[in-house]
Amino acid sequence: MKNIKLTIEYDGTDFCGWQEQPDLRTVQGEIKKSLSYIFQTDIKLTGSGRTDTGVHAAEQVANFYCHSDFTLYRIKAALNGTLPKDIRIINVEEVPSDFHARFNAKKREYHYQIAKYEKAINRYYSWFYKHKVDVELMHRTSQHLLGRHDFQSFCQSKSDVKHYICNVEMIKWEEKTDLIIFKIVANRFLHNMVRIIVGTILEIGAGKIEPETLKLILNAKDRRSAGPTIPAKGLILFKVYY
Amino acid sequence: MKNIKLTIEYDGTDFCGWQEQPDLRTVQGEIKKSLSYIFQTDIKLTGSGRTDTGVHAAEQVANFYCHSDFTLYRIKAALNGTLPKDIRIINVEEVPSDFHARFNAKKREYHYQIAKYEKAINRYYSWFYKHKVDVELMHRTSQHLLGRHDFQSFCQSKSDVKHYICNVEMIKWEEKTDLIIFKIVANRFLHNMVRIIVGTILEIGAGKIEPETLKLILNAKDRRSAGPTIPAKGLILFKVYY
Repeated sequence: MKNIKLTIEYDGTDFCGWQEQPDLRTVQGEIKKSLSYIFQTDIKLTGSGRTDTGVHAAEQVANFYCHSDFTLYRIKAALNGTLPKDIRIINVEEVPSDFHARFNAKKREYHYQIAKYEKAINRYYSWFYKHKVDVELMHRTSQHLLGRHDFQSFCQSKSDVKHYICNVEMIKWEEKTDLIIFKIVANRFLHNMVRIIVGTILEIGAGKIEPETLKLILNAKDRRSAGPTIPAKGLILFKVYY
Repeated sequence: MKNIKLTIEYDGTDFCGWQEQPDLRTVQGEIKKSLSYIFQTDIKLTGSGRTDTGVHAAEQVANFYCHSDFTLYRIKAALNGTLPKDIRIINVEEVPSDFHARFNAKKREYHYQIAKYEKAINRYYSWFYKHKVDVELMHRTSQHLLGRHDFQSFCQSKSDVKHYICNVEMIKWEEKTDLIIFKIVANRFLHNMVRIIVGTILEIGAGKIEPETLKLILNAKDRRSAGPTIPAKGLILFKVYY
């Protein structure tokens, strides 16, 4: 029995997220369909975590077990040959039998791309924010979120989690010609956490909320204290660290 | 009578190129439709040059004449409000009455994006080349094309032009994590010139043609001497200089 780790890129635009659901087009569902076709048996596929409808992934990770003599190269070719073009398998490797894509993930990196003007090219991978923002101020202010905190204020209400503690290791704001890119690394992410954090910090960058308010929002542990949940299409699961 | 200059971004994926053609979806055709609707009269729109089916533009330029009291801001908003999402007007400005988007263009910059592996995200804006290439060698070799030369070898056969002389001012190859980007600036470009140049240099980078052959290809003045015309989807009209 082999344990196979997949590194997967996908364009989330036309998917109802990662997780398999009956009658909906999902990334996990499509990959499971291909795996079952290739190995001629039902295959269980474990992802590092879910992504929501419309969220993209540069490097999602998943693993599955199989009995097969196929080489890794052949598995990759067979997957890319049968999967739709909006899912690509970047890497296939054999891992120890106890490797688990979700439980072994140490941290995740997400990026959020904000378009500085309405874009035609790349319009599915960024969200246009119509206000002028101070990127340097956003970068500085958001450093307050670094470290271990209760992020309930930045979690969609009624999320079914045991606790809201996350350890944020890195936050960066970078400005390019046409884009502003937000980068964040944490051990775990709550539901809509990145989209609410970016929605809140953008309001600070646009001068609608005072920078000092960010600490109060964090301490409030109440979703209603934070800014809006911005659209999924600018969000990319960039990397999963093991 | 005002002369208005438009800076236009478009995703060429779903267009039969720039130039208006009956019954086909073209960029010029869509913008003319919007202009005629906004100004309630037929408007002639002059582009800096054509782009082929599938070719993108980060900054195409066009101009048109109108009698109207609309502010530039209102023209931009009206255009972006009526145009499809794969065309965006980035800038609208009034220019002297003798400004001509094609005749006044001094040089153009094109980029060609080569994917290092098959991509899901951005798959419409890059072309996957399956061979390993030496980017440094391609950069060095392609510098031979700088200057004034007859580029007939890099022009689609049976092009209706008076001469094949182009003055190439800049050629660069840059390598990113997932992409290799070719950049070129010249006073004019022949039909499929960028796609044939990149197709040829890639064969050098992959070791299929000797670097020294590039000079012979240039001197041959014969399309058959050069490499293949690679697909349109990696090609972007990046900027027009006036």
